[in-house]
Amino acid sequence: MNIHQVMQQSGEAFAAYGKASAAQRAVFLETIAAAIEARREALTTITHEETNLPAARLNGELTRTTGQLKMFAGLLREGSWVSAVIDTADAQRTPPKPDTRKMSVPLGPVVVFGASNFPYAFSTAGGDTASALAAGCTVVVRAHFGHPRTSALIFEAMQEAVKTCGLPPHTIQHVTTPGNETGKELVTHPLTAAVGFTGSLSGGTALMRYASERAAPVPVFAEMSSINPVLLLPGKLKEDAPGLARKLAASITLGMGQFCTNPGLIIAVEGEGLELFKDSLADEIRKFAPQPMLHEGITRNYETRTAAVAVLDAVRPVVENVAMIQTVEAKDFMEDTLLREEIFGPYSLIVQCHDAEEMQQVLNSVQGQLTATLMATGEDLHQHADLLENCTRIAGRVIINEVPTGVEVCAGMVHGGPFPATSDPRFTSVGTSAIQRWVRPVCYQNFPDQLLPEALQNANPLRIWRTVNNEWTNT
Amino acid sequence: MNIHQVMQQSGEAFAAYGKASAAQRAVFLETIAAAIEARREALTTITHEETNLPAARLNGELTRTTGQLKMFAGLLREGSWVSAVIDTADAQRTPPKPDTRKMSVPLGPVVVFGASNFPYAFSTAGGDTASALAAGCTVVVRAHFGHPRTSALIFEAMQEAVKTCGLPPHTIQHVTTPGNETGKELVTHPLTAAVGFTGSLSGGTALMRYASERAAPVPVFAEMSSINPVLLLPGKLKEDAPGLARKLAASITLGMGQFCTNPGLIIAVEGEGLELFKDSLADEIRKFAPQPMLHEGITRNYETRTAAVAVLDAVRPVVENVAMIQTVEAKDFMEDTLLREEIFGPYSLIVQCHDAEEMQQVLNSVQGQLTATLMATGEDLHQHADLLENCTRIAGRVIINEVPTGVEVCAGMVHGGPFPATSDPRFTSVGTSAIQRWVRPVCYQNFPDQLLPEALQNANPLRIWRTVNNEWTNT
Repeated sequence: MNIHQVMQQSGEAFAAYGKASAAQRAVFLETIAAAIEARREALTTITHEETNLPAARLNGELTRTTGQLKMFAGLLREGSWVSAVIDTADAQRTPPKPDTRKMSVPLGPVVVFGASNFPYAFSTAGGDTASALAAGCTVVVRAHFGHPRTSALIFEAMQEAVKTCGLPPHTIQHVTTPGNETGKELVTHPLTAAVGFTGSLSGGTALMRYASERAAPVPVFAEMSSINPVLLLPGKLKEDAPGLARKLAASITLGMGQFCTNPGLIIAVEGEGLELFKDSLADEIRKFAPQPMLHEGITRNYETRTAAVAVLDAVRPVVENVAMIQTVEAKDFMEDTLLREEIFGPYSLIVQCHDAEEMQQVLNSVQGQLTATLMATGEDLHQHADLLENCTRIAGRVIINEVPTGVEVCAGMVHGGPFPATSDPRFTSVGTSAIQRWVRPVCYQNFPDQLLPEALQNANPLRIWRTVNNEWTNT
Repeated sequence: MNIHQVMQQSGEAFAAYGKASAAQRAVFLETIAAAIEARREALTTITHEETNLPAARLNGELTRTTGQLKMFAGLLREGSWVSAVIDTADAQRTPPKPDTRKMSVPLGPVVVFGASNFPYAFSTAGGDTASALAAGCTVVVRAHFGHPRTSALIFEAMQEAVKTCGLPPHTIQHVTTPGNETGKELVTHPLTAAVGFTGSLSGGTALMRYASERAAPVPVFAEMSSINPVLLLPGKLKEDAPGLARKLAASITLGMGQFCTNPGLIIAVEGEGLELFKDSLADEIRKFAPQPMLHEGITRNYETRTAAVAVLDAVRPVVENVAMIQTVEAKDFMEDTLLREEIFGPYSLIVQCHDAEEMQQVLNSVQGQLTATLMATGEDLHQHADLLENCTRIAGRVIINEVPTGVEVCAGMVHGGPFPATSDPRFTSVGTSAIQRWVRPVCYQNFPDQLLPEALQNANPLRIWRTVNNEWTNT
């Protein structure tokens, strides 16, 4: 595949697709959703073969994926996401105040690298593609080698929607050439305006580097690595250690732990409560049946990484069954950076602290996270406000008394966080705000009304919420 | 100065200042504005000595700077800039829907590198500092060597405000150590959360590189380089070439051309209208009296750069007086990248095209810009919609029949654009949205109401506009 040609085609398609109205793009997203839905049976069958993921999970994920497309269609119709601002002129002022109006416009062709662990929701027609198309960007998807037939079938569905909607044929393209060199070519092509990636830290940082070394650097949103600390507070441990163990065992083993929000780190104060929790967790874990992982590379990586940790003197086993749970003293944890790295799969490390002060230190020793969770009673939260505050400092999402797995697709979600969770903490890859990664503001100064985009015209023909002379209004 | 200590102090101050309420931060910004205003006479005297800028201009810029601080105070009180979103729980759904709420929180300590050409508005207490403080970030300002006494006096005013407001003493710090090494140390320090810069392309790209090479990369917003193309359309040239020349002569010579929005490139179709425009422009330019430039380095750079262009065979002089205006054929312009680089100062190059098609090609050959301007009649705009569209593609602000100099500080402004205008086209450094560079979203999942930030509490105690279950409301 000639990448230069692919990007040129994407640039040409953008010249037309970038001008499609929000209403047209909404219909397009819904048409994609319907075309994917029409292939549900074939898709789930093929994807199961390619990824080992069970049918129920795949059906749920497919529904989530089409729901996500429809969510962005709804966002486009509501319309306020373009952050339209109007400041009208004042000729009497000294100096005269010009008429300035601002709204978001699409960046241009976006290159999307999907993830293996969500073959629908974070892959070919996943959140990055859906949000970029919603923004008005054309998309070039690099197919994931872990599910090539799934990716091809999803692409077929999207192409059908392109045709049905009469959009430029290259609005979405599908690059199947394997190898890192192809990824580099895509990211460094001059016509590439932005990059979306979900995957490993090494993969994501490589793309960040390529993008920063371009003659004209472009934004990369890479969602990469998170161990998702869960803090078990003393009162909660005392109140219900077996209940916590039940919740966490289910979260750790869910989908063989192959989630970026898998709880890989459990932090607690040592004592009776924690001992009961560990015993209960081991019992709970033993109830689950193992499933094959997504692909051989992931299995091998999981085995290598867990083995490397298991041989460490400081680390002691809690259970090794479907999941591997180990434990370590806080002091030893903080001394070895290896223990703070993500192990992708059903692995979790319990860090035993002397007191709450040491829990704080352990929390401060970890890097940026997608999530941080507190399991706590009301009294715990009252006594440990500092822990809650530090969770907010390191993570994009802070959770109280629920597990981090299960990322709700909604306006209130943040799936992001400081590096290395993502490449830029100011954005999210899940939820309606994900669209903000692919747009830039443009100011239109002194434009005749009829030459302004509809979102900025005086009459507000789209009836959207806007800021007009510093007042929020939809009239 | 020990940079490690400075950043540690900033980190410690952030732990407190990051928790100050929006109302407290608003008062703080207003107190800074008042403290600067109280030093107006001393400031304008000192700054005139340091920068050669005339008193009237400095007085205007000081008012703009305090106005900007007050604008952010207003934004904080209005409150909707935090993009508060509430999605309430639905326990009946399968799986149950969690309660998720999202809002913006400050990134952490921000390092600000001011510009020499706006010693108030884009320097020590300029837009970067004002927006970062408004966001709840602490600020470390690297003083510009071009106006050290001005910077010190502004810092004194800010410190007075810190004290008056009872904020941590290191909320704002002032680094006066010279040398590039200090800048690098500031950008690469682990506690630095983000960087703001206004200046040269070489300076900005160096900071971008430092930030990308960190163990944990951080966002940099650098506003760097723009030649601000102005397109003179045929009808407008025919209608009023002398009027256009008058407007542009004033814009080119304003402040000795030392503005990032100075019109450095004029694109037009050759012919009678353009000849009259050139003659008129030369006449107009001769009416202005030269002023000394900001500092020796800028003067030297201007002389070197204009001399390098003047010796090119393809380039012919139009006038050399206060400003240097030259002209070149489109074909030659497109062949020499040197001609597309910014020359900081009162320089402008007129590119003569055979037809509108060639104007389009010339426009397509330039890189990302802060502004693009069309001087056009209604009929011109109707006939050349493609030119208008391409202006939007390359620039952060598109202007019709006004000059690009004069950047209104308001919500509708965009002072930004694709590289090399800035390091990230998704942000602006002027206007209320400038605050968005320094914040990240955090999702609070399943929080008891009283532990939520006020902006996300059920009762909406701040009475701000929010998105609640996908509806805009301020109740």
